Amino acid sequence: MVLTVHHLQRSQSERIVWLCEELGIDYELKIYQRERASLGAPSDLKAIHPTGTAPVIQDGDVTISESGAIMDYLMGQYGNGALSASSNVPNFSDYAFWYHWGIGTFQSTTMTLIYVIKAGVEETHPVLQVLKQKITNSLEMMDQRLMQYKWLAGEEFTAADVYAVFIVTTMRLFTPFPLLGYSGIKRWLENVSHRPAYRRMTEKAEQSESRGEVPVLCDEAPRPMASY
Amino acid sequence: MVLTVHHLQRSQSERIVWLCEELGIDYELKIYQRERASLGAPSDLKAIHPTGTAPVIQDGDVTISESGAIMDYLMGQYGNGALSASSNVPNFSDYAFWYHWGIGTFQSTTMTLIYVIKAGVEETHPVLQVLKQKITNSLEMMDQRLMQYKWLAGEEFTAADVYAVFIVTTMRLFTPFPLLGYSGIKRWLENVSHRPAYRRMTEKAEQSESRGEVPVLCDEAPRPMASY
Repeated sequence: MVLTVHHLQRSQSERIVWLCEELGIDYELKIYQRERASLGAPSDLKAIHPTGTAPVIQDGDVTISESGAIMDYLMGQYGNGALSASSNVPNFSDYAFWYHWGIGTFQSTTMTLIYVIKAGVEETHPVLQVLKQKITNSLEMMDQRLMQYKWLAGEEFTAADVYAVFIVTTMRLFTPFPLLGYSGIKRWLENVSHRPAYRRMTEKAEQSESRGEVPVLCDEAPRPMASY
Repeated sequence: MVLTVHHLQRSQSERIVWLCEELGIDYELKIYQRERASLGAPSDLKAIHPTGTAPVIQDGDVTISESGAIMDYLMGQYGNGALSASSNVPNFSDYAFWYHWGIGTFQSTTMTLIYVIKAGVEETHPVLQVLKQKITNSLEMMDQRLMQYKWLAGEEFTAADVYAVFIVTTMRLFTPFPLLGYSGIKRWLENVSHRPAYRRMTEKAEQSESRGEVPVLCDEAPRPMASY
């Protein structure tokens, strides 16, 4: 029985494909493209789990969605402790912080900004300024960390990196911002781009994307998704 | 050396106080009130961690913020396996899903709605309707789960419940919505209200809140925070 990863192209499910590649898990990849008009998930993907979003995986009787849950599940079932820090190592609190912060704060704030912009709120509105400032604070905090350490949890690559990379790469297709000046983040993304598992993810998961090559690892603001 | 929990009243840090009570951890509680004008954290709380938000805990050399990270840290250091499901039990995927879904989707969507409303977006705007529909979908999914099982992960109370309760209770002070009709959620909140640890949290963490008793476990929409 093979694990199936349902991947919506140009979405956060890229991190599940990447994690499978990092852990050497045998999986079947099902690729979906966003609906042209809404940029949302197509109905056949929505039908798999009540949340109606990517990522979703199926593993025997188990159907599970939500990035963090899938990552915990895959590391627990197939990881043999790889890519996560156990609670008795000194950097456990760093791992836990950066792993959850990606989910709980940074991605959540960026998502909020996408909706506020979509709702037509003016550039000068204080709420928009507050959100942009929060994102700048997040980038600065992350950059300072990555100036000090090779990876978010310390000197070892972990699932905290797998979680967070999407937020400063592919997610910028929906609310483009540059990364100029953040040399810690830039070096981190360069290191990510050299990982064979990340390269395999890009080839396998995005190759049939018909909107062309997207330089998501760039430090300039990418062209937004809608314009492809 | 005693663990210090920095708690902002009427905020998600209530779940950290609650978790400490559930796990029987010895901790010192430092209580902060929201700034009257902004409803944000006061500057002495902001100074403790670069994220500038509650919750934050300090444990010896470790200073850590972000609910999920603190919960993983506390369960890892002091929990002896309590309140979390290990990866070899049958309901591990349920535990992982509901734990992360609270962080990654439900709270994030509710937070987005708070910002969109704050930005003055009209009631009829499609973006606002989309967000409200997402919250309704989340409540329905949760309600169906809680009609079937006593707690989110199954028959046992876990950290998934500790994570999610705040979203349908105290968080409603910022974007009030009723829970009428959701009988699964209502029974779940009744069960929560009977837990001695939850009661101790309310007494210890909210007792000096000067804005009066807030019936956060009610099924009607509560009065919004700003009006206290």
